[in-house]
Amino acid sequence: MSLVAARYGKDLVRVLRVVRRKPNENGKIIHDIVEYNVRALVEGDISSRNLTFVFDQTDGLDTLDLAKTSPHVLSPELFATHVGAFLLNKYEHLSAAFVDIEMLKWSRLAVGEHGVDGVQGSTNGQGHRHSFQRDGEDKHIVNVEVAKSDNGIMSVKVTAGLCDLLLLKSSGSAFSHFIRDEFTTLVEVKDRILSTAVNLQYDFPKYTLKNGLGSIGAMETELEFKKAAELARNVTIDLFTTHDSESVQATLFKMGEAVIAGHKSVEKITYVLPNKHYIPVNLDHLGIANMTEDVAEVFMPVSAPRPQHVARHMRS
Amino acid sequence: MSLVAARYGKDLVRVLRVVRRKPNENGKIIHDIVEYNVRALVEGDISSRNLTFVFDQTDGLDTLDLAKTSPHVLSPELFATHVGAFLLNKYEHLSAAFVDIEMLKWSRLAVGEHGVDGVQGSTNGQGHRHSFQRDGEDKHIVNVEVAKSDNGIMSVKVTAGLCDLLLLKSSGSAFSHFIRDEFTTLVEVKDRILSTAVNLQYDFPKYTLKNGLGSIGAMETELEFKKAAELARNVTIDLFTTHDSESVQATLFKMGEAVIAGHKSVEKITYVLPNKHYIPVNLDHLGIANMTEDVAEVFMPVSAPRPQHVARHMRS
Amino acid sequence: MSLVAARYGKDLVRVLRVVRRKPNENGKIIHDIVEYNVRALVEGDISSRNLTFVFDQTDGLDTLDLAKTSPHVLSPELFATHVGAFLLNKYEHLSAAFVDIEMLKWSRLAVGEHGVDGVQGSTNGQGHRHSFQRDGEDKHIVNVEVAKSDNGIMSVKVTAGLCDLLLLKSSGSAFSHFIRDEFTTLVEVKDRILSTAVNLQYDFPKYTLKNGLGSIGAMETELEFKKAAELARNVTIDLFTTHDSESVQATLFKMGEAVIAGHKSVEKITYVLPNKHYIPVNLDHLGIANMTEDVAEVFMPVSAPRPQHVARHMRS
Amino acid sequence: MSLVAARYGKDLVRVLRVVRRKPNENGKIIHDIVEYNVRALVEGDISSRNLTFVFDQTDGLDTLDLAKTSPHVLSPELFATHVGAFLLNKYEHLSAAFVDIEMLKWSRLAVGEHGVDGVQGSTNGQGHRHSFQRDGEDKHIVNVEVAKSDNGIMSVKVTAGLCDLLLLKSSGSAFSHFIRDEFTTLVEVKDRILSTAVNLQYDFPKYTLKNGLGSIGAMETELEFKKAAELARNVTIDLFTTHDSESVQATLFKMGEAVIAGHKSVEKITYVLPNKHYIPVNLDHLGIANMTEDVAEVFMPVSAPRPQHVARHMRS
Repeated sequence: MSLVAARYGKDLVRVLRVVRRKPNENGKIIHDIVEYNVRALVEGDISSRNLTFVFDQTDGLDTLDLAKTSPHVLSPELFATHVGAFLLNKYEHLSAAFVDIEMLKWSRLAVGEHGVDGVQGSTNGQGHRHSFQRDGEDKHIVNVEVAKSDNGIMSVKVTAGLCDLLLLKSSGSAFSHFIRDEFTTLVEVKDRILSTAVNLQYDFPKYTLKNGLGSIGAMETELEFKKAAELARNVTIDLFTTHDSESVQATLFKMGEAVIAGHKSVEKITYVLPNKHYIPVNLDHLGIANMTEDVAEVFMPVSAPRPQHVARHMRS
Repeated sequence: MSLVAARYGKDLVRVLRVVRRKPNENGKIIHDIVEYNVRALVEGDISSRNLTFVFDQTDGLDTLDLAKTSPHVLSPELFATHVGAFLLNKYEHLSAAFVDIEMLKWSRLAVGEHGVDGVQGSTNGQGHRHSFQRDGEDKHIVNVEVAKSDNGIMSVKVTAGLCDLLLLKSSGSAFSHFIRDEFTTLVEVKDRILSTAVNLQYDFPKYTLKNGLGSIGAMETELEFKKAAELARNVTIDLFTTHDSESVQATLFKMGEAVIAGHKSVEKITYVLPNKHYIPVNLDHLGIANMTEDVAEVFMPVSAPRPQHVARHMRS
Repeated sequence: MSLVAARYGKDLVRVLRVVRRKPNENGKIIHDIVEYNVRALVEGDISSRNLTFVFDQTDGLDTLDLAKTSPHVLSPELFATHVGAFLLNKYEHLSAAFVDIEMLKWSRLAVGEHGVDGVQGSTNGQGHRHSFQRDGEDKHIVNVEVAKSDNGIMSVKVTAGLCDLLLLKSSGSAFSHFIRDEFTTLVEVKDRILSTAVNLQYDFPKYTLKNGLGSIGAMETELEFKKAAELARNVTIDLFTTHDSESVQATLFKMGEAVIAGHKSVEKITYVLPNKHYIPVNLDHLGIANMTEDVAEVFMPVSAPRPQHVARHMRS
Repeated sequence: MSLVAARYGKDLVRVLRVVRRKPNENGKIIHDIVEYNVRALVEGDISSRNLTFVFDQTDGLDTLDLAKTSPHVLSPELFATHVGAFLLNKYEHLSAAFVDIEMLKWSRLAVGEHGVDGVQGSTNGQGHRHSFQRDGEDKHIVNVEVAKSDNGIMSVKVTAGLCDLLLLKSSGSAFSHFIRDEFTTLVEVKDRILSTAVNLQYDFPKYTLKNGLGSIGAMETELEFKKAAELARNVTIDLFTTHDSESVQATLFKMGEAVIAGHKSVEKITYVLPNKHYIPVNLDHLGIANMTEDVAEVFMPVSAPRPQHVARHMRS
């Protein structure tokens, strides 16, 4: 028997970075913030055991150091790439790095007269200079693999996505035309509640860092990570809301198609959607009709069991 | 030894209610929704054991029934009162009901041209007729106690509040002028990150249901629950954002005062605020300055230990 | 309006203490460990605002210091008392302390020949000298209030208990003889699955620390905290298992009586028990009988809604 | 662009199965129970959209039906195989099934005289006939892929493992001989606290169901799933406890080797271990020594950041 792979590193490196903009015309300083949970694992020559554990003992300090010095810190895709490439660049015996970032949601508050012109707040109104709110547990997710070839050239594979975006529509969703057999207890409905926690993930093509760390900035220009994140979110919410859906599947096929059609660099996109069931409550024995779509008004959320749908699209 | 109290009922009764408005001038129907987690416990004559367990075996059906028939269902304070008063009214041997409601946050989505004039969405723009988003894990909380006296008259004590509202400001908060002794390792700072999960709870005066269930609607007119909820939330966010705080305590004193001053019926308000620490990362050994307020840009969120502050105000 | 109370302190002070016993006859050293989550809040003269925040800025260091120096550290009841009394003793302007401890479950592993004679492991066999396993998420809970009177004498009120002990019996439990009305959908069953997460809490009489910190050790002798914890756990498991129960309520009445009867100092005990429902699955439409107690073999766990039972006993 | 894969099914199908043994010599009936969380997804001909959603609408009823009728229900590996093979066998247009089972821990209670001879309880003593305790949040995990070839023959790939087994040793673990550079703040220690949540996963060779569903029982004989589960758990606990470890990595290399050496069918095993740090508390400024291994007694558990170690072994 033999050891075939060993990977080690730091998980749950939590970091918040504040970037203070230059004073505006009124001398006011606006803050931008990002909060990341970072995992960075490395692979490499494992013959020397503890001697290779460069990363373990630093308490994530290299990540935290880069959070200070990296010009890419506000972009989770670029920052993850920077962390991975930094490690491979610095430690010769390492051959691959796997950096995952979970970006927490902090939206700028907008509070009456305290806002700043031209800065968008999370609600209607001007944005506050340095105050933020967690307005949703949905997270932007980035997974980056950096590999170093024998000649020292590094290449990067970026996957990004969105998880746990919780949506509900109380109309405009049907479920019908399915196979009926002895296990089938479900009735067909033309209008129902549809709720889901959106998880989606899209892949970018492999990118070669021809000039090492100096090539990182150009990735955004070429691959347009920020645009992809906005597109995926907007398309998903827009189609969830407006598509008169025959089934969850039909809607998520449309979503995948729209993201690939709308972005030149997204090669593949995978949606994983659970149905979060809201079941009409049977009040028949009380003489109250609540079971058909025209009168259903009271629903019981049921967390388990629940359907799960997975669909993957590729650019053809 | 003797049994002195027994309370029983249903916990985690989950219910979503859809209220369909009348068609607007364009024939469009707008939906309002509420999602509640309800706990309803009762006390009463306990001599007959199982015979008193009227409530246990109903699987929350009485609550779900009321979610259909109650005219008060969109107000968690009135609905909780209705559930409690309904039980005491129906079952003679019950003397008290304790109904707690946790209202989940569903905000109306606003999606481009699909919105409806005059209906506010969660973001800038018109609101969608029947699509919603969970834009925060903060919850509106209601605790109601209904008591029945020997003559059958019921009285109600309502407490309401807000929990888990997650806020962060990256400037405008100090911590200084505290006692220093041998345990003190903290340095004074004039500007720091302040983050907290707001929990607040306010009390209304006891209300007598002179006409039984028929008096419930009048409670809103007299006690103004909806206004209190909006005021508490707005005051809290506004002062968190704009008060140049010497300490968390100083700010929460101001918050409590403002809520009592701004609402005639709130008798008492209690704030419980943890500090969610964001600690500047020491990068000195890398030759990078990050520890003083003018250069601190990289912070590590630390969940434990954390300070907790409690302040209670009463109308004097 | 006026501030009527302010309480502040540290929450989530996490600490693990290792106590190394003296070497045994074979020169082997056995370790005892406790892991606590501590919350310590104080009240006092609040006129001077920040100057009173003695406790906040220490990062829980006083608690951690006591974890090193307190001779009572292995008893959560005595240690909580020590933390509270220490604070009131040290800071003149404080009048009350509220110390809560959650003790995590670490049971000594027993591993074949590596065990130590006379030391009990978590499973059959000798216990290992310094290796432990989290064999359950149930926790021992302690809540202590220490108050200081004007003459400086401190008194202590201790409440302790057990939470989240997860039990299931697949026979020996019925539910019958309840009121039937229009809401009743439940059928009577003579044998069913009973599962619950036990939460219980018992109160000790107020204790005066006549000699200040020097009186803490005598509390155990007089009040017997350790015996109470073992008794409450054993009685609960024993009656859950062996009582042929007509209802959850009937069983928990017996439990409360047995704890008060078995311990001289327990004045009051409160049980809060949810029913964790396991519902027989209806397979009728597949021609398979699974709904009556003689044939029910497949059950679906349902987390919500669920009944909750509360019973409080006092020594009469 | 084109849809390349769609997978759908049911998640969170929760089921508890009671198996009643034949009465023993004293006429007593002993119950065995298993509680599973099942996810079953399928792939197949996706051209017909909703018509393929055989599985979605059954509310997990096929799984629950099999929980009643399958002779393999007490083995999660065989039961998962049965669910997958059943679906592929029944629905012609399906080509693959992915069945994941999480088995919750229920250990038989042992309560004084109520036990049954020859039935092992979770603690020292005889086991109770039908009472159980959740003595740990660690779970046995099974992932099964069943594929159907064009000729209708099904083959099975089984992976199994253990997750979230929480262990701690307060001695017998060092960390030293690592690379030191400018990021290194950690000091070498010869004796420290080591705590981890074990996650491990091992693979069995592909198995062909030559006689369809009739071949499932023979899998246990050939592949010995039950023995593998016991071996992996025992080896892990035994080496965690007794291996005088230079580093987590060194110990987990030994664990992987021992499992492959001890079981003929395990082809590959992967361990993923976080370090759950317990850091000695610096009490220097109070004049108390707690930082070196001979005097360290008070530790602060720190959940983030934390190291993560991955090691994969293959039979060579």
